[in-house]
Amino acid sequence: MNQFDRVRQLAAQLRVDSIRCSTRAGSGHPTSSLSAADLMAVLLVGHLRYDWDQPEQANNDHLIFSKGHASPLLYSMFRAVGVIGDAELVDSYRRLGARLQGHPTPVLPWVDVATGSLGQGLPDAVGVALAGKYLDHLPFHTWVLCGDSETAEGSVWEALDKASFYKLGNLTAIIDVNRLGQRGPTELEWDLRRYAARVEAFGCRALIIDGHDLDAIDQALTEARLATDKPTVVLARTIKAKGVPEIEDKNGWHGKALPPEMAERAISALGGVTDLLISTDAPQRLASAITADPTAHVTLPRYEVGEKVATRVAFGAAIAALAVRPEIVVVDGEVGNSTHADEFQKVCPDRYFEMFIAEQQLIATTVGLAVRGYVAFASTFAVFFSRAFDFIRMAGISQVNIRLVGSHAGVEIGEDGPSQMALEDLASVRAVHGSVILYPSDAASAVRLTAVMADTAGIVYLRTTRGAYPVIYGPDEEFPVGGSKTLRSTPKDQVALIGAGVTLHECLAAADQLANTGISARVIDLYSIKPLDRENLIEACRVTGSRLVVVEDHYPEGGIGSAVLEALADADVHALHLTHLAVRGLPTSGTPAELLDVAGISSRHIVAAAERLAGR
Amino acid sequence: MNQFDRVRQLAAQLRVDSIRCSTRAGSGHPTSSLSAADLMAVLLVGHLRYDWDQPEQANNDHLIFSKGHASPLLYSMFRAVGVIGDAELVDSYRRLGARLQGHPTPVLPWVDVATGSLGQGLPDAVGVALAGKYLDHLPFHTWVLCGDSETAEGSVWEALDKASFYKLGNLTAIIDVNRLGQRGPTELEWDLRRYAARVEAFGCRALIIDGHDLDAIDQALTEARLATDKPTVVLARTIKAKGVPEIEDKNGWHGKALPPEMAERAISALGGVTDLLISTDAPQRLASAITADPTAHVTLPRYEVGEKVATRVAFGAAIAALAVRPEIVVVDGEVGNSTHADEFQKVCPDRYFEMFIAEQQLIATTVGLAVRGYVAFASTFAVFFSRAFDFIRMAGISQVNIRLVGSHAGVEIGEDGPSQMALEDLASVRAVHGSVILYPSDAASAVRLTAVMADTAGIVYLRTTRGAYPVIYGPDEEFPVGGSKTLRSTPKDQVALIGAGVTLHECLAAADQLANTGISARVIDLYSIKPLDRENLIEACRVTGSRLVVVEDHYPEGGIGSAVLEALADADVHALHLTHLAVRGLPTSGTPAELLDVAGISSRHIVAAAERLAGR
Repeated sequence: MNQFDRVRQLAAQLRVDSIRCSTRAGSGHPTSSLSAADLMAVLLVGHLRYDWDQPEQANNDHLIFSKGHASPLLYSMFRAVGVIGDAELVDSYRRLGARLQGHPTPVLPWVDVATGSLGQGLPDAVGVALAGKYLDHLPFHTWVLCGDSETAEGSVWEALDKASFYKLGNLTAIIDVNRLGQRGPTELEWDLRRYAARVEAFGCRALIIDGHDLDAIDQALTEARLATDKPTVVLARTIKAKGVPEIEDKNGWHGKALPPEMAERAISALGGVTDLLISTDAPQRLASAITADPTAHVTLPRYEVGEKVATRVAFGAAIAALAVRPEIVVVDGEVGNSTHADEFQKVCPDRYFEMFIAEQQLIATTVGLAVRGYVAFASTFAVFFSRAFDFIRMAGISQVNIRLVGSHAGVEIGEDGPSQMALEDLASVRAVHGSVILYPSDAASAVRLTAVMADTAGIVYLRTTRGAYPVIYGPDEEFPVGGSKTLRSTPKDQVALIGAGVTLHECLAAADQLANTGISARVIDLYSIKPLDRENLIEACRVTGSRLVVVEDHYPEGGIGSAVLEALADADVHALHLTHLAVRGLPTSGTPAELLDVAGISSRHIVAAAERLAGR
Repeated sequence: MNQFDRVRQLAAQLRVDSIRCSTRAGSGHPTSSLSAADLMAVLLVGHLRYDWDQPEQANNDHLIFSKGHASPLLYSMFRAVGVIGDAELVDSYRRLGARLQGHPTPVLPWVDVATGSLGQGLPDAVGVALAGKYLDHLPFHTWVLCGDSETAEGSVWEALDKASFYKLGNLTAIIDVNRLGQRGPTELEWDLRRYAARVEAFGCRALIIDGHDLDAIDQALTEARLATDKPTVVLARTIKAKGVPEIEDKNGWHGKALPPEMAERAISALGGVTDLLISTDAPQRLASAITADPTAHVTLPRYEVGEKVATRVAFGAAIAALAVRPEIVVVDGEVGNSTHADEFQKVCPDRYFEMFIAEQQLIATTVGLAVRGYVAFASTFAVFFSRAFDFIRMAGISQVNIRLVGSHAGVEIGEDGPSQMALEDLASVRAVHGSVILYPSDAASAVRLTAVMADTAGIVYLRTTRGAYPVIYGPDEEFPVGGSKTLRSTPKDQVALIGAGVTLHECLAAADQLANTGISARVIDLYSIKPLDRENLIEACRVTGSRLVVVEDHYPEGGIGSAVLEALADADVHALHLTHLAVRGLPTSGTPAELLDVAGISSRHIVAAAERLAGR
C-alpha cells in the first residue's frame, strides 16, 4: 500500500468516524469535520511529528484545532493513532463525564488549549511557536487548523501580524475554506486570492491549494515545514460535508448531526468502518534550552516603611528580581514603561516579548507560553484586559496558569478620565473559572505578591495602582494567597473598615480620625480578593456586631463589596450592617484625590459611614 | 489671504493651543496632537461639512477621534470654530467638572462616542457610515482620525473588513503615522507601503501622503469624499511633535506635557497665540430617510400558558413584531439562526446587518447606529459578548443606548461544553456603567422584555435560554424594568426560592416538592437583574426570617446571588441565611438536565437547600 493509499484510507476513516460519533451523540459538527478530513489525514501520515505515548515530550509538534467545533475530526485522529479506542469515540462523545467534549479541552493530554470560541487557537499557537523559536530553541512545528469564518475575528490578524513580526517560520495555519458559515456563505466565500492578499500583506506566506487534493496538501505541508522565517498559511479550498454528496456544499447543515439513516448511507459509501492504525513520526528527543529553576535565589527589592512608592513600580522591581528564574517570561502590551514591566526587559531582554497594542494577542501569547511550561506574566493597564476578556475566560477553561498584571486601576489614575480607569475588572475577572485576584496596597506587599503569583496556579491577576503611597509593611512580611492583614484592632472595635489598594490608605486615615472622636475602628487589608479570608471577616463581624464599611475603587457591582457579601452570605453572624463605598456614577477627569473624594471613597466618606454605623 | 495661508495659520494655532492646554494641565498628549495638526487643519477648512450651531442636524459630517488621546488637538479645533472659548480650553482641560476631559466623551455635543481605548473609534464610525448609506440615505461623510499604534488592534481590521464589505465610500480613516508609540517605535514605523498593502487587501482604498504637505492632504481628502463604494484610508506620514523641533520624532515624549519653558519657546516659534476663527461649510439641510415612530402599532406574539417555547424563540418573534417601528435595527454576529434574530431579517432585511464572526464590530456597529438615533439590537451567543467587553464598557462611557441579546446562557446549553456557556456574563455586564439586565424565564416575559428594552436607555442586556420551557405568564402580563414576580407566596412562607431564566423553573418544581413535605416556599422570578426589585426581596426576608435560596446558571461570583446580597447589604432585615446555588467548578458536556443537576442548581438541590434552611 503506498503512502497516498494510506492517506486516502485514513481520510475515509476520519470521515466515517466523524459521522459515527456525532450521529450517535445526536449533535456536533460533522460537516465542518468532513471538509478538513483530507488536510488532517495528510498531516497525520506525513508531517506531524508526535510521540503519542509521551505527550509531554518537549520536541513534539503541536496541533491546535482553532476551529474547535471540528472536534469529531480531532477525536477521530486520536482514534487513528491509537490513543483512544472506538468505544470511547463513539459511545462517550459529548456525554456527561467524558473527556471527548463538544469542543476540545486540555482534559485530553494531546490538546494544548480549549477552543470553541473562534479566532483563539491561532493566537494561542503564536505563543507556542514563539516559545519554540526564542526560548526552547527546539525544531518542533506548530500546526493550526482554522475555519474560514473565524478569519472575520480581528484576533486572527493580530496573530498573523505577530507571527510575521517574530518571523515564526515554525508556525503553519491551515485554513479550511469551506465557504459556508453557520448561517450561510462566509464573507469571502471561495475567493482564495483575497485571503492570500490579506495573509501576505500581514507578512505571512500564503499557499493556495485544493484541500481535497492529497498531493497538493502534501506539497504545501512539506513547504510549510521547511519555512525559515515566515509563517505559512495554507489556504485550502474545501467542500463542507465533503464525502457525503447529498449534503456537500449545502447550506443548513452546520452544527447538525446526520440523521441515522443518512449516516448509515454515508458510512457505507465511504467504505464502512475501518480500523486503520497510523503511527506518526516521533520527533527527535531533544530538551528545551531552558530548564525551569523555581529554586533560583531571588533577591527581592526592599523598601522602608513610610517611603512613598507606587505598587506598579514595586511590581517592576520585583519582576526584574525574578528574572533569575529562567522560566519566567514577560509579555507587554506597549505600555511596559507605565506598568513598569520594562524593568524586566532591562535585565532580561531575551525573555521579554512586545505585543504592541493587541491585548487579545497579549493574553494568547501568555497562554501559549504557559502551554510550553513557562511562567508567563502579561501586563498592561488593568482596564485593557477587558479587551481580551474572552481570551481570559477561555484560559480559565484551558486551566493554564497565567499571570496578569494590570496597572492604573480605578479613578485613582486621575486626569486621563474614565476610558483609562479599570472599574469593572474585579467583577469580570472574579467570575473567570480558576481566577485568583491579588491587590496590594503598598510596595512591600506588591513585591511579595509578585513573587507569590509566580508560584500560584490559575488565572492570577495582580491589580496595581498608579500613584505612590506610603509603604505599610516591613520587607519580610508574608502575604499568602487567601490571607488578609488586620492593621488596627482592639477587642472593642465598633466598626471594621475594609479596603485594598488605594482605599486601604483611606481606611487607615479614616481610622485615625475616628480614633480622635472616640470610635474604635478595625482596619483590614483585603489584599487577596479571591480567594478571600472569610475567617477574618467573620471575626470582624463578631467583634463589631457586623458593622462593616467596605471601600473600593471599582464600580459597586461584583467587586470587593460583593466578594465580602458572598463570603458572609451563610455565615453565622449578626445581621449585617454593611456600608459599601464604591464608585457610583460615571467618573470624569480630575486629580486622584479629587476623584476619590467625588466618588465617595475617600477617608472623609469612610469616617461618615463609620460614624453612622457606630451610632446604631 | 488664500486658502492655504489660512490652513497654515490654523495648523499653527492648533499646535499652539494643543501645547497651551496640556502644559497648563500638566498632562496630556501634545506630541500626538502636533503630528496630526496639519491633517485636521485641512479637514476643518476645506472638507468637514458641519453646522456647529446645530450638532443634531442630520446631515452633518461626523468626525471621530479614534486616537482619543489627541484630545488637545480636538479641543483646539473646537476653539477654532468658536464653540468653546479660550478660557475653557486653557483653564479647564483635564480638570474636575470640565467637559474637556483627558479623552473625549459625548458630554461634548460635537463628540459622538467616547474614545481612549484604542481601536474603537474606527469600528464605531463604520456603524455611523452604515446608517448614513443604508438607513438615512444622507450624503454626510464620516471622518476618523486614527493613530498608527492602534492598527495593531484586530478590531481595526474587523472595521475595515466590514467597511469594504458594505461598500462604505462615505467613510474615511486618516491614519496619523507618526512612527512612535507610547514606549518606542511602532511595528511598521514609516513603512507606509506595508500599511497600504494591508488596507487594500482588506478592500479599502489607500492613499499615501506626506501628512505635513497641505496640498497633498487637501487632494487626498477631496478624493476621499468623492469615493463611491470604497472606504478610503489616508496613510499620512507624519512626525510626532511636529512643530517643536527640539522634540520632533524623539522617543520618550509620548503622553507628556511640555514643561512651561519649552512650551513658551515652542509657542513663540509657532507664531504665538492667535484667534483665527474658522467657519466650516455647513451641510445641505436634509432629513434622514427614516423617521422614528415609537408609537407604531406593534402586535406582539402571544403564547398559551404551559406551551413549551424557548425564550430565544420568543425574542425572535418579538423582534420581528417590532420591525414595524422604522427606527429598529438588528445586527447579527453570524448566529442569527440560533439567537433567532433572523426572524427580523425575514420581515425586514433592509434593517438587518450581518457582521459575521466579529463581535467587536458587532457592538461597534450597534454603537454607531445608536449615535445616528436608531434603536439597535445586537445579538449573538451570550458568551461571545465577552469578546467585545471593552466595547461594551466604552459604550457605557459613551452613554449611548444599545440593546444586547445573548442566547445560550449557562450550562443549560448542554453538549457543546464550557466554551459556549455564558457563565460570567451577568458579573461582567452588571459592572458596566449604565447597564440594565433582563433575564426572562418564559416566552411571555421574553416577548414583553424585548419590547421594553426597545424603550429603555442604557446598555440593555437580555439573556435568553437555549431550551424550551413552559410559558408561565399570560400574554398581557407586564414586566417593568426593576420589577420581579412573586409566583408562590403565603404569609407563612418559611423560605424564599429566587431564580431567573432556567432556574426559575427549577424553583417552581422545588416549591411543589417542598409543599408535599409541608414546607411553604415563596418563589420569586427575578427577571430584572439590574436594577433589582429590592423591596420585594426585603419583603421576602421579613416573611421568611431572611431564609433565601438564590439559584443561578452562572458562576458564583458577581451574578444574581451577588446582586441580591448587594441589595440587602444595608437593609434592616434579620441576619441572612442565604444559600447560593450557582455553577461551581468547570462544567463539561452533558444533557441540559444532567448539567443543571451536576452544577447543583436543579430542583433537588434547591429542595435540599430549602429544607436545611427551614430546619434552622
